[in-house]
Amino acid sequence: MRSARLLPAFALAVVAALAAAAPAFAQLDPLPSWNDGSAKRAIVEFVQATTTPGSPHFVPPEARIAAFDQDGTLWVEHPLYTQVVYCLDRVPAVVKAKPELAKVQPFATVLSGNREAIAKLSMDSLLKILAATLTGMSVDAFDAEAKQWLASARDPRWKRPYTQLTYLPMREVLDLLRAAGYKTYIVTGGGQDFVRTYSEATYGIPPEQVVGTAGGTKFGYDEDGRPFLTKEPRLLLNDNDAGKPEGIHLMIGRRPVAAFGNSTGDRQMLEYTKAGSGARLSMLVLHDDATREYAYGPARGLPDTRVGTFPPALDDEAKKNGWVVISMKDDWRRIFAFEP
Amino acid sequence: MRSARLLPAFALAVVAALAAAAPAFAQLDPLPSWNDGSAKRAIVEFVQATTTPGSPHFVPPEARIAAFDQDGTLWVEHPLYTQVVYCLDRVPAVVKAKPELAKVQPFATVLSGNREAIAKLSMDSLLKILAATLTGMSVDAFDAEAKQWLASARDPRWKRPYTQLTYLPMREVLDLLRAAGYKTYIVTGGGQDFVRTYSEATYGIPPEQVVGTAGGTKFGYDEDGRPFLTKEPRLLLNDNDAGKPEGIHLMIGRRPVAAFGNSTGDRQMLEYTKAGSGARLSMLVLHDDATREYAYGPARGLPDTRVGTFPPALDDEAKKNGWVVISMKDDWRRIFAFEP
Repeated sequence: MRSARLLPAFALAVVAALAAAAPAFAQLDPLPSWNDGSAKRAIVEFVQATTTPGSPHFVPPEARIAAFDQDGTLWVEHPLYTQVVYCLDRVPAVVKAKPELAKVQPFATVLSGNREAIAKLSMDSLLKILAATLTGMSVDAFDAEAKQWLASARDPRWKRPYTQLTYLPMREVLDLLRAAGYKTYIVTGGGQDFVRTYSEATYGIPPEQVVGTAGGTKFGYDEDGRPFLTKEPRLLLNDNDAGKPEGIHLMIGRRPVAAFGNSTGDRQMLEYTKAGSGARLSMLVLHDDATREYAYGPARGLPDTRVGTFPPALDDEAKKNGWVVISMKDDWRRIFAFEP
Repeated sequence: MRSARLLPAFALAVVAALAAAAPAFAQLDPLPSWNDGSAKRAIVEFVQATTTPGSPHFVPPEARIAAFDQDGTLWVEHPLYTQVVYCLDRVPAVVKAKPELAKVQPFATVLSGNREAIAKLSMDSLLKILAATLTGMSVDAFDAEAKQWLASARDPRWKRPYTQLTYLPMREVLDLLRAAGYKTYIVTGGGQDFVRTYSEATYGIPPEQVVGTAGGTKFGYDEDGRPFLTKEPRLLLNDNDAGKPEGIHLMIGRRPVAAFGNSTGDRQMLEYTKAGSGARLSMLVLHDDATREYAYGPARGLPDTRVGTFPPALDDEAKKNGWVVISMKDDWRRIFAFEP
């Protein structure tokens, strides 16, 4: 993907060809997994408008920042966030290191393997599990543990590594934007350190372009006097809701020109992006494909009273602010790279 | 500077030519403001070792991260940090907006213009001034204010904008590293938002590659419903001492391969960088040129009992760990670009 950065002219030519709908260039479509429609058109027109010299909406290369939510926007988030699966899977190792936890809640419930009881754990219990499994070790040890888990864990439905459950159409958008000179960022409610362990291999997004929920670390020395950092259960950034634009300011320092999300947790990021001057693109992925992926809403994890829709408030705001909705069912020809 | 990124082969050729000391290529010296010596040699050899394919110390392009302290390492920090001058200069505007502060300390002292009294303000007083002048406004308003000040303020000794008081030899190092595929970061104890207002124009370092002392922001809406961020007096990262490697982990997520500093506040960053495997470069700028710049030490702002030296502990550690000391007096042929 690196070489793509050197080919903005090529990418622009492709976009121009696509916009002109010249049949001879059909094979150069930079978004082959997308059906023709308003969503695909919005992306192509945005790239054209912001990267064509002389365009009234031209954005200088250094200001080309695009922010992508991860869970539910770049890969599958249903029925559980991958990171939650990771934390639950890590509980036995944590209890092995601290046997006194075996009889303490919520660890006892997780160890029981009772899926129904685990699914009913409160947010407070979940936070205890996250703190115990994501902190207390060195950043290098965490990195190694997470990578090892990702290499062996399999999603129960597709029987594949979680890193294969990325949406091919969104990876095409990442590639198209990068070829057009955009820096692509993940801005996730998930753990920044966790996502950074696979973002480069999975999306071509380096660790320094991942903004996520982040805890503090503590600098210290090992017995040989070598410095290292320990992950602490001290929250620095809750990168959800208003935390997303706040996190963007902290970690990037510029307002994005394009943003992609799929839930109420992305609302403020989409608003903040769209409120900038000039051409702005805010898009929402709608999970309305129960056959090929999932159909759920209005809020993930709550009863699906309005399957395949957003909460009414978000739906209204999307219409009012000109956010473009991406229907997985209608807009995506293919969802996963592993599909035939 | 952007185009330089596309020329790693050229940069390597230049470095190779320099290392071979081929007189015909002398004009291609990428570090023309450096005198020949151990410091210059260390930089050139490091770039060669980490970017030559097949070298035992080759560093893949995505891992090429170089971290630079700013104050005293990239530009003049004496006798006052530029940001402190900015904050003192902002006090009248703050008091104009909040007249009740005029009789309150430390604001009354600053308004008095009594330089001796101002110089004696305690750290606690200084923090009050920083909080009052750096927070409470929107991030956009702060950005505009800081840029306006930087355009008009002049350093009292050189009568030039502060952004011209950068060290030319260090800018050459930035250029050389970038040409060799390194991402260059500022890792400063100064305010992240302040440094970001000029880093791109001054050093070619974009805002997203500035790690600094950072406060929280608060997302909200103005009367027209437009979202904006307000700077809050809530410290998220004190990017000094141990805070430097902690900030590097938070904002970059990778251990640097090269780091440059000049004071005890950079110690942990230099240790953390040097402790990585493979070729590592940790360098310390020594302020020992009272004629062309300043000579001071052991700790900035304290009596210069050991002018032009580091505190003994840092000096010992530099020797023990193989950090390379840069003598401004001996290693730098030119210090500023405006010198004849």
